[in-house]
Amino acid sequence: MTYVLYYWDGIQGRGEFVRLALEEAGADYVDAGRDTGKEGQGTQAMTAILQSPDLSILPFAPPFLKDNEFIISQVANILLYLGPKLGLVPEDEQLRFFAHGLQLTIADIVAEAHDTHHPIATDKYYEDQKPEAKARSANFLDNRVPKFLGYFERVIARNPSGAGHAVGKDLTYVDLSLFQLLEGLTYAFPRAMKNASKVYPHLHSLCDLVRERPNIARYLASERRLAFNESGIFRHYPELDQDA
Amino acid sequence: MTYVLYYWDGIQGRGEFVRLALEEAGADYVDAGRDTGKEGQGTQAMTAILQSPDLSILPFAPPFLKDNEFIISQVANILLYLGPKLGLVPEDEQLRFFAHGLQLTIADIVAEAHDTHHPIATDKYYEDQKPEAKARSANFLDNRVPKFLGYFERVIARNPSGAGHAVGKDLTYVDLSLFQLLEGLTYAFPRAMKNASKVYPHLHSLCDLVRERPNIARYLASERRLAFNESGIFRHYPELDQDA
Repeated sequence: MTYVLYYWDGIQGRGEFVRLALEEAGADYVDAGRDTGKEGQGTQAMTAILQSPDLSILPFAPPFLKDNEFIISQVANILLYLGPKLGLVPEDEQLRFFAHGLQLTIADIVAEAHDTHHPIATDKYYEDQKPEAKARSANFLDNRVPKFLGYFERVIARNPSGAGHAVGKDLTYVDLSLFQLLEGLTYAFPRAMKNASKVYPHLHSLCDLVRERPNIARYLASERRLAFNESGIFRHYPELDQDA
Repeated sequence: MTYVLYYWDGIQGRGEFVRLALEEAGADYVDAGRDTGKEGQGTQAMTAILQSPDLSILPFAPPFLKDNEFIISQVANILLYLGPKLGLVPEDEQLRFFAHGLQLTIADIVAEAHDTHHPIATDKYYEDQKPEAKARSANFLDNRVPKFLGYFERVIARNPSGAGHAVGKDLTYVDLSLFQLLEGLTYAFPRAMKNASKVYPHLHSLCDLVRERPNIARYLASERRLAFNESGIFRHYPELDQDA
């Protein structure tokens, strides 16, 4: 059974949180939003679904996943669906809801990271909202990043199973997403994130652990892993960065 | 079995999406964040949980729900948990994931509605970010509201079960949340929302249907339903509103 992921071509973006789970599990999947020239793939095929005049299980926006005729949208929802199937979440019901709550909190900081460069209007250029982006970035780095990352640090530190994971004793999709979050923040704000390994040691160790998983290491070295760039969510504009 | 909801006192806020589900179902619950003077309740009791030094299932922020020792945070996650227990979501698995995806999309526009008055910094006063709030509000009303509400309108219109609900043939927590979203937007932006009933007729009918549910009508008329105000998510600042 092949999973079909639909997401914008050319960026990691929100699709990357889903890709990391599929890659870690070695799942059979097609990244159908990418413009490979194959029939039924590419941006046009994706847009055709979003603009379909009669689809009733209608996604609002990419990413969305197709599993045969089953359609699921929103990153955290896709991971909620895939987690048990890919063995990336514990069996325990309380831990499953805890993992999902963490994933939703990751979604919150990801949205805020996006708004650092687009605080006024998503559909306007960064260049047209630069002073506001500077003000929002300063607040994000001074207040929001420490609040969110401090929380995730505490969650890992308090995990009763130890072992340096966020939830339970094994790797979950939350760990993979925390890795992606830290990678993104470090790409976007290298100066501000300079001391992150000292301030958030558990989170830092977790990211090392994820980076060294064989399937993840292979994926990161592959052509499938696009580089961060200034069309994605995490963008490196040096003028938005600041000292730690 | 009594559900215990923790949320800030004095506002509807994000807690209201959970309250509407509990009220519609006639569930036994305590609104424990409200300062009633009872032991184990009020802001202090809630903060004590958030700042507990050893809780491992740690919420990031209110609202969170306790069901005996079970703790769940994030509005959409709480509704995912409560939905089947309160009979507010269909049995069908695809429809459950669809409902949850819709709820996450509602969470997205709610976050954007918040940022109309706080586009730069959540922890600073509205008065200190007024020009930016005007710019963000204009973009929100011109582009984002039509995009989101147009989507929800299509979802209701295409529901194969008909009957004017968002998902399946009966009332779900998504319907309740769409009602709250429309109420909030109409409170915050009465001029911009003036023609909403014509532009989004299905959404408008759905809101009427929710408002007339006996348990919801009773709740809305009760003291438990706080009024919208300028400490909540949906705030009425006339200078941020504009003609439809």
